[in-house]
Amino acid sequence: MGVKVGIIMGSQSDWPTMKGAAQILDDLGVSYETKIVSAHRTPDRLWTYGKTAVERGLQVIIAGAGGAAHLPGMMASKTRVPVIGVPVQTKALSGVDSLYSILQMPKGYPVATMAIGSAGAPNAALLAAGILALQDAALAERLDTWRTTLSDSIPDEPQDVHP
Amino acid sequence: MGVKVGIIMGSQSDWPTMKGAAQILDDLGVSYETKIVSAHRTPDRLWTYGKTAVERGLQVIIAGAGGAAHLPGMMASKTRVPVIGVPVQTKALSGVDSLYSILQMPKGYPVATMAIGSAGAPNAALLAAGILALQDAALAERLDTWRTTLSDSIPDEPQDVHP
Amino acid sequence: MGVKVGIIMGSQSDWPTMKGAAQILDDLGVSYETKIVSAHRTPDRLWTYGKTAVERGLQVIIAGAGGAAHLPGMMASKTRVPVIGVPVQTKALSGVDSLYSILQMPKGYPVATMAIGSAGAPNAALLAAGILALQDAALAERLDTWRTTLSDSIPDEPQDVHP
Amino acid sequence: MGVKVGIIMGSQSDWPTMKGAAQILDDLGVSYETKIVSAHRTPDRLWTYGKTAVERGLQVIIAGAGGAAHLPGMMASKTRVPVIGVPVQTKALSGVDSLYSILQMPKGYPVATMAIGSAGAPNAALLAAGILALQDAALAERLDTWRTTLSDSIPDEPQDVHP
Amino acid sequence: MGVKVGIIMGSQSDWPTMKGAAQILDDLGVSYETKIVSAHRTPDRLWTYGKTAVERGLQVIIAGAGGAAHLPGMMASKTRVPVIGVPVQTKALSGVDSLYSILQMPKGYPVATMAIGSAGAPNAALLAAGILALQDAALAERLDTWRTTLSDSIPDEPQDVHP
Amino acid sequence: MGVKVGIIMGSQSDWPTMKGAAQILDDLGVSYETKIVSAHRTPDRLWTYGKTAVERGLQVIIAGAGGAAHLPGMMASKTRVPVIGVPVQTKALSGVDSLYSILQMPKGYPVATMAIGSAGAPNAALLAAGILALQDAALAERLDTWRTTLSDSIPDEPQDVHP
Amino acid sequence: MGVKVGIIMGSQSDWPTMKGAAQILDDLGVSYETKIVSAHRTPDRLWTYGKTAVERGLQVIIAGAGGAAHLPGMMASKTRVPVIGVPVQTKALSGVDSLYSILQMPKGYPVATMAIGSAGAPNAALLAAGILALQDAALAERLDTWRTTLSDSIPDEPQDVHP
Amino acid sequence: MGVKVGIIMGSQSDWPTMKGAAQILDDLGVSYETKIVSAHRTPDRLWTYGKTAVERGLQVIIAGAGGAAHLPGMMASKTRVPVIGVPVQTKALSGVDSLYSILQMPKGYPVATMAIGSAGAPNAALLAAGILALQDAALAERLDTWRTTLSDSIPDEPQDVHP
Repeated sequence: MGVKVGIIMGSQSDWPTMKGAAQILDDLGVSYETKIVSAHRTPDRLWTYGKTAVERGLQVIIAGAGGAAHLPGMMASKTRVPVIGVPVQTKALSGVDSLYSILQMPKGYPVATMAIGSAGAPNAALLAAGILALQDAALAERLDTWRTTLSDSIPDEPQDVHP
Repeated sequence: MGVKVGIIMGSQSDWPTMKGAAQILDDLGVSYETKIVSAHRTPDRLWTYGKTAVERGLQVIIAGAGGAAHLPGMMASKTRVPVIGVPVQTKALSGVDSLYSILQMPKGYPVATMAIGSAGAPNAALLAAGILALQDAALAERLDTWRTTLSDSIPDEPQDVHP
Repeated sequence: MGVKVGIIMGSQSDWPTMKGAAQILDDLGVSYETKIVSAHRTPDRLWTYGKTAVERGLQVIIAGAGGAAHLPGMMASKTRVPVIGVPVQTKALSGVDSLYSILQMPKGYPVATMAIGSAGAPNAALLAAGILALQDAALAERLDTWRTTLSDSIPDEPQDVHP
Repeated sequence: MGVKVGIIMGSQSDWPTMKGAAQILDDLGVSYETKIVSAHRTPDRLWTYGKTAVERGLQVIIAGAGGAAHLPGMMASKTRVPVIGVPVQTKALSGVDSLYSILQMPKGYPVATMAIGSAGAPNAALLAAGILALQDAALAERLDTWRTTLSDSIPDEPQDVHP
Repeated sequence: MGVKVGIIMGSQSDWPTMKGAAQILDDLGVSYETKIVSAHRTPDRLWTYGKTAVERGLQVIIAGAGGAAHLPGMMASKTRVPVIGVPVQTKALSGVDSLYSILQMPKGYPVATMAIGSAGAPNAALLAAGILALQDAALAERLDTWRTTLSDSIPDEPQDVHP
Repeated sequence: MGVKVGIIMGSQSDWPTMKGAAQILDDLGVSYETKIVSAHRTPDRLWTYGKTAVERGLQVIIAGAGGAAHLPGMMASKTRVPVIGVPVQTKALSGVDSLYSILQMPKGYPVATMAIGSAGAPNAALLAAGILALQDAALAERLDTWRTTLSDSIPDEPQDVHP
Repeated sequence: MGVKVGIIMGSQSDWPTMKGAAQILDDLGVSYETKIVSAHRTPDRLWTYGKTAVERGLQVIIAGAGGAAHLPGMMASKTRVPVIGVPVQTKALSGVDSLYSILQMPKGYPVATMAIGSAGAPNAALLAAGILALQDAALAERLDTWRTTLSDSIPDEPQDVHP
Repeated sequence: MGVKVGIIMGSQSDWPTMKGAAQILDDLGVSYETKIVSAHRTPDRLWTYGKTAVERGLQVIIAGAGGAAHLPGMMASKTRVPVIGVPVQTKALSGVDSLYSILQMPKGYPVATMAIGSAGAPNAALLAAGILALQDAALAERLDTWRTTLSDSIPDEPQDVHP
């Protein structure tokens, strides 16, 4: 069977951010692929990716982008496969530009927008896992375990570590 | 079978916004329930809702809230069922407060955040439908039709209507 | 000869704003067409418009959009014809969302961004005229006259009109 | 007798900020405890902490959190003990996300919000001391002395120190 | 015995906002006074109010102000009595100016800042009540009842009222 | 003797705001003139006004403008006569655009920037009066009286007027 | 023949940013000149530059500036030659001040505003090339090649490079 | 004769910023004093400074402060001597908090606000000099020379210096 999740991003420079999604999917045993799909530099690649997403069996698309971040929204226009958007932090506007470009989609084409910054990419993967778990009991169990482990890892008191 | 989608909101005053989600689910033939679940005024209701979501068979939770909008994030903490957050527009801060409270979740607990304003609630329903369509071919077809109808409705040229 | 300027917009609701561009082009005697080209609802229309812009002889494309305003930037990706973007004011974020989505384009695909609000659309037309005037002496003269008339219309002292 | 002040925080990473509160309470001779209570990762710990606050004799709860900072507000929902919120500075949004999540509480559940940044945590402790001093004359005197010492430490003229 | 709570404000125009605090104190049976104390227009009144607060037996000061809202912070400089600040919404900057002027106090002089907008003033009163309840069991009980009543008033489902 | 203060503005539409400066100068008996001087539409008028300001005996220039508000800064570039800038509130960006354009002047060319909104224009006049009062004892006395009258007009308690 | 494009900037400190425009013009074989033209420090130089732009045969003016960035807008006031504005990033306000001063021009005087940050200057040059290409088929071809090369350079998958 | 200009600041940490004002006054031969006057830590020092400003012969007060920057506005409340405010850049909010606290003064008490960041303090001194020059022809000449020197120092072309 083919991959379930596509992790796409607008540029090589988004990979350090988006790697956080890949690592969670690895931890949870979810198959995925990674592609650079630039809305502006490779629009035809975006077109093809979106048009073939259903037939290729993709269940979730995680799309990261920065600045005038058109990739997640354009992908949501091209396929009904759920699209999760990760606003990559930018230098001048700190990712608020990425956020608004991804979030403020018109009626018809939702993008499931995640936090700006380091929590956004892993959370995109966890949301993808939550969606896939609706029809995969073993994954649901692994996700429950992941969540319990996170909860259990929180110590009762802060440690006074010296850096 | 029970309902698939729970539409919850922090207050009666969020209903005019959240009704936009219910209408789309009606159009697409998706079963849902509507509840007021205030994170601050009815925290125990929130707790119970979250803890029983999986066993009740909920597949998606759509949560709308405004201001210090804790409902979507707290719900995401209590269940692995995907949570979609709708930031309700507010008077002083125009919904940017709602947005940041919903969006900026820490690693572990994603909330699929929608646009502030009128597009947010219907898009939450469309995303829910896209998630459910992964395992419901008939719904997938209805969603495709909905999307095609929207596309086909766009006229070629703007009409010079006088208000 | 075909039209020189294409005025496109994401939705009928952008027309009250974009009409301000059409009126200036009328005043300056520049031929134009108006089209609704939604990046998300009619992406294929966008594709075709962009791909045929050069061969159709378009010299400037004026694109207005609001929210996650992907139209100007996607058009700039599809054609080397200069694209002027008009950020339409929005309800919740006052057009700052439109602005960032249009302005923050990556290297390679400039969009000539105009002011949010009422000055943006007429200024897009004036910039288009300035570009066309580089190879049209008669238009250059009409533009100079338009500018002089504007300057000359400024009274010396404010009038104490009562509203 | 038990501790008067609870210093809680959403994560170990908040401790470098929140330590500033502990140091002031040490200086003023106010008893306190420190706990990690994550709204999202340990919601049941939050529940228990809030529900038992009155019976345990806590007089003030100081809660620090960053991002979608739900801890202070959820604690204010669970107990009538006064809650002071410290918005921890964040990387992408500089703590404005933390601020709005803590500040914009709905009617019924106030959080006494402090400054973003280094002054917030010590000021939370000083406010706690001011509250306790209402029924503790010795503490009131120590707080007055602390305030006088701060005032007296301000030199008359700036010193031209070279870093 | 004298009043416990002082409600002060920078201007008559703040009263429609600050009245929301007076109403809650009335409901909870807490004695209070209301004064206009402008930091800029009546600085000496501010001085006197602050200097005599302790001896007059004030337990909490609620201070509302808008724009360059110096009243809460200057009051916190003049007395150790806890000061709660209410940022009044403004026309051009929507109260963000009021918020920053009240919130961003330097180390030494905390102001317990409330939400901008309609929830801020009643919440200031509720926080004041929570502080006074620490030494007034009857008030504590009334506050608990108020909170329970609020919780119990939330209906289970939104009502489809037509405005 | 000629006028002491020039009140200039970028457009007739700034007059309702700038009238607030004229009224204060009338009240204080300071001579002034009013002119429309648009930085963009009448740049030569700006040039001439700036170049002749010293020789014409102007002591202060009050300049109001909105949007890309270049008038105050360009005037400060053309004359050493103190320039006071009034950021006029705008529709889309609420005057923050006007503010930044007026405030953020480079080293060498200060503009004394006033508040956005209704207080800005009268305060510009009061600052002008304060500057002129340095060499005009009678005006100093009138200004002191104006300030005392304002202070004395503040009632002790808010009035519960019903609108 | 004279140069086609003028690259002007408010200060030597803008050159590291604006060099990005010069490099693209070099790559595309477009003749240009570079000048420091400070709106505030050398207003007469600005005047002369603007007044002679048409007769000197300039086709496009690229103007970079930071803070109260008046250069692009004042140049647009002095000549009908198309002006492209580059908002230089600033320390305190991250270039939002530059952006608003350049973008929010009144009706009559458009400035084609580019992105804040590193993409802005090269994109200004690409837009200038797009404008010149309307009447220069060889340049149009070189621009097409530049765009194709950029598209073709995007790898299919992100590389896991370690810094 | 006494000093003409008082440079005051809220804290020793403001001196690296405010030194920029002192240096300009040194260059222009204007006598001044420097004082730390904290609105919150030394309110009585502020009171005294303001009340004696006129009788001590101060002509201008330059006040720098950061965060809830109450010093300039409170000083403007205590004296009719013109007050120039310098918003010191802050860590979390980049000085926008300082700016709003200084700028948004109510009618009656203007503060001549300067730019956030490095240009603000020298410009405060230049504005002070411009005010004093109204009654000091020798200073006017020195200021004119300073301005001319600045203009003349701008090279014609940017230098390609390598850092």
